[in-house]
Amino acid sequence: MPRIVVQAYEGRTLDQKRHLVRAITDVVVDAYAVPPETVTVVIEEIRKDHMAKAGVLRSDRDARAESGGRDGNGLPA
Amino acid sequence: MPRIVVQAYEGRTLDQKRHLVRAITDVVVDAYAVPPETVTVVIEEIRKDHMAKAGVLRSDRDARAESGGRDGNGLPA
Amino acid sequence: MPRIVVQAYEGRTLDQKRHLVRAITDVVVDAYAVPPETVTVVIEEIRKDHMAKAGVLRSDRDARAESGGRDGNGLPA
Amino acid sequence: MPRIVVQAYEGRTLDQKRHLVRAITDVVVDAYAVPPETVTVVIEEIRKDHMAKAGVLRSDRDARAESGGRDGNGLPA
Amino acid sequence: MPRIVVQAYEGRTLDQKRHLVRAITDVVVDAYAVPPETVTVVIEEIRKDHMAKAGVLRSDRDARAESGGRDGNGLPA
Amino acid sequence: MPRIVVQAYEGRTLDQKRHLVRAITDVVVDAYAVPPETVTVVIEEIRKDHMAKAGVLRSDRDARAESGGRDGNGLPA
Repeated sequence: MPRIVVQAYEGRTLDQKRHLVRAITDVVVDAYAVPPETVTVVIEEIRKDHMAKAGVLRSDRDARAESGGRDGNGLPA
Repeated sequence: MPRIVVQAYEGRTLDQKRHLVRAITDVVVDAYAVPPETVTVVIEEIRKDHMAKAGVLRSDRDARAESGGRDGNGLPA
Repeated sequence: MPRIVVQAYEGRTLDQKRHLVRAITDVVVDAYAVPPETVTVVIEEIRKDHMAKAGVLRSDRDARAESGGRDGNGLPA
Repeated sequence: MPRIVVQAYEGRTLDQKRHLVRAITDVVVDAYAVPPETVTVVIEEIRKDHMAKAGVLRSDRDARAESGGRDGNGLPA
Repeated sequence: MPRIVVQAYEGRTLDQKRHLVRAITDVVVDAYAVPPETVTVVIEEIRKDHMAKAGVLRSDRDARAESGGRDGNGLPA
Repeated sequence: MPRIVVQAYEGRTLDQKRHLVRAITDVVVDAYAVPPETVTVVIEEIRKDHMAKAGVLRSDRDARAESGGRDGNGLPA
């Protein structure tokens, strides 16, 4: 411990992930005063057709944005 | 917030998922009196060979059912 | 399965929770065509000093709002 | 309930998983005095490029080990 | 890794938990052929008014059982 | 999204938590090129009698350390 779980959409590069886990570990070591080898970071990727806000799947929201439409909640597609 | 995580077996259609995230968002908005845009729903799909009840993987339980067998716990395959 | 996890701030009444778990179960039964006794709903409550958006704890954001201030991101306190 | 989640790297065989879920169910039944059919075990597999210790992805750590190198923290690759 | 999360109702004794984490660690070491010091076990306790099956909170189901009633789903209180 | 979950032992101060959520948000914004208001950080605190390594609860390991003992795995108490 500490253990950090990063939940984000699919699509980041390996280098972005390398940068993220290094930077997160450094700030946890600094803020919580723990040795780096006690810090675990786990990346959980989420598909856009498995995530919804205001009742609309992100994949559908993106599709509407591409087709120029807006959704029922006035939220930007 | 609120954030709702739906853990279910793989295999549902995109339309079932659309229906589910819409309906869950509506009942959360109603029960907890929050605006829809604050409600997030995440779908986590689980493989049947990664889920066990009474010590038996669901994939094995289904295979027994197809072969007409019952498992050691008398549970219906 | 399915198993639904509801993550929300502390503070809802027992009746709100009763209403929520009943309504969520009904929509899951309808959308995923499963029997009610297979549906589990778990409520996870989160403290406002354990949740941050845009780098600011919700408890601090609420405190600012009460004191009429706005935070650096222009977000409503 | 109880529900047991096993988080481990990808790569175990189906038989290892069968053995694991059976053995875990048995010890939970024994330690917590519950019937086996109330015990659920879920396996969550994690990719080695999605898990870091001391700021280094396990996949990178393994690659260094294969190339004979050690990482900055003196940890075995 | 492996990391095991045990989700169960509140109310077990410290000795039950000691027994459980020891026994789970042993079976994971055996089934997955890993050293014991790589195995982490985390206990997450769940309140009975935060867990529902078939739309009914476990705390309400227990209360009915004590009052001799059955619930709408014919499930034993 | 992204959503970051920080799992750590109880006992940090509110200021440590403020520092942590601010710093984590900043590195996620930098590494994943997302606006700060899309980043959520959740802190989950774990009791030392609910966390075990190598089959021994952290609370028991600490108690041994205070009493000068070592545990069966040669791990520092």
